[in-house]
Amino acid sequence: MGAGKSMKIYLAGPDVFLPDAVEIGRRKAQICAQHGLTGLYPLDNSVDREAATASLMIFKGNEAMMESADAIIANLTPFRGPSADAGTVYELGYMAGRGKLCLGYTNDPVSYAERAARHYQVVTTADGRLIDAEGLTVEDFGLPDNLMMMHALDLHGAPLLTPKAPPADIWRDLTTFEACVRLAAAHAQRLPGPL
Amino acid sequence: MGAGKSMKIYLAGPDVFLPDAVEIGRRKAQICAQHGLTGLYPLDNSVDREAATASLMIFKGNEAMMESADAIIANLTPFRGPSADAGTVYELGYMAGRGKLCLGYTNDPVSYAERAARHYQVVTTADGRLIDAEGLTVEDFGLPDNLMMMHALDLHGAPLLTPKAPPADIWRDLTTFEACVRLAAAHAQRLPGPL
Repeated sequence: MGAGKSMKIYLAGPDVFLPDAVEIGRRKAQICAQHGLTGLYPLDNSVDREAATASLMIFKGNEAMMESADAIIANLTPFRGPSADAGTVYELGYMAGRGKLCLGYTNDPVSYAERAARHYQVVTTADGRLIDAEGLTVEDFGLPDNLMMMHALDLHGAPLLTPKAPPADIWRDLTTFEACVRLAAAHAQRLPGPL
Repeated sequence: MGAGKSMKIYLAGPDVFLPDAVEIGRRKAQICAQHGLTGLYPLDNSVDREAATASLMIFKGNEAMMESADAIIANLTPFRGPSADAGTVYELGYMAGRGKLCLGYTNDPVSYAERAARHYQVVTTADGRLIDAEGLTVEDFGLPDNLMMMHALDLHGAPLLTPKAPPADIWRDLTTFEACVRLAAAHAQRLPGPL
């Protein structure tokens, strides 16, 4: 990145569903600024939620924000089940497809297979596969979530960051988020010119 | 599409986790062939699942398959929770980011808010928002899943296809899948030349 242009980072995550979503976004953007970067938080798109086209307006706002960003930091903390929030996962895929820098973190360091077993009845078959009650395979590579997202980070950015143990408030502790911001800042400094 | 070149469609979905995953893939590819299209099914990538690098090899195989495809048909039937399979959602985002034709279906036509309320304790706040037991907002736009995926289909392909009622076997009924294939075939015919 050139010295005159700050790397823009799309701040994806189920954070937007928190009752204090605006405050979390403000803190995330502030951490980016402390590292010389610009954080773009989806709630920055002000939309009338009562309008018939509200959800489409939110989509268009988020897509335009992703287009304008150089990178994504995705909060992949599990959301209503053993995997990350679907909207966040879509956005990670979109940014990978656009060739942007992909970074992510989760505040739950447990493996997917272990987490699935907490939510569902998981058994081992005679030939050693893990399956759920419907007979569907439980992915068991020791990764924290589905391999597509985990290796997308490995190959399109940096490996998923996790704390050693879950923090007391998994929705509001930004320690691991800040570690992602540091990675982005280091990446921005290595680049010779504007993206 | 030119007459000499068949549109290639990446067949994304949690189908790969079924005990009869290979047979489902064969049937999906056969339906594509009946409509003059080529279906690419992730299990076509043969990987030694015991190898230390198995998950990375699967990722690379799937990404290469997506790169070679002109379109995606994503099975967004809810998987281990109220939303679609995370791997499938990532792939839908990736293909949207690559500018490919995005089609999708679900065999569960219920709205996200209604489905979330089946899995979790959902209540209405004094100001009319739906929230879960952790206080996080439950998206309530009447859509079958997170708005990012739903409007991605609207704007990058065609609206999500759903049956009027869930079929008896939501994992193996391919009626709505075939409707997506018909849409893809119609799209292929409208295009003037090779993609």
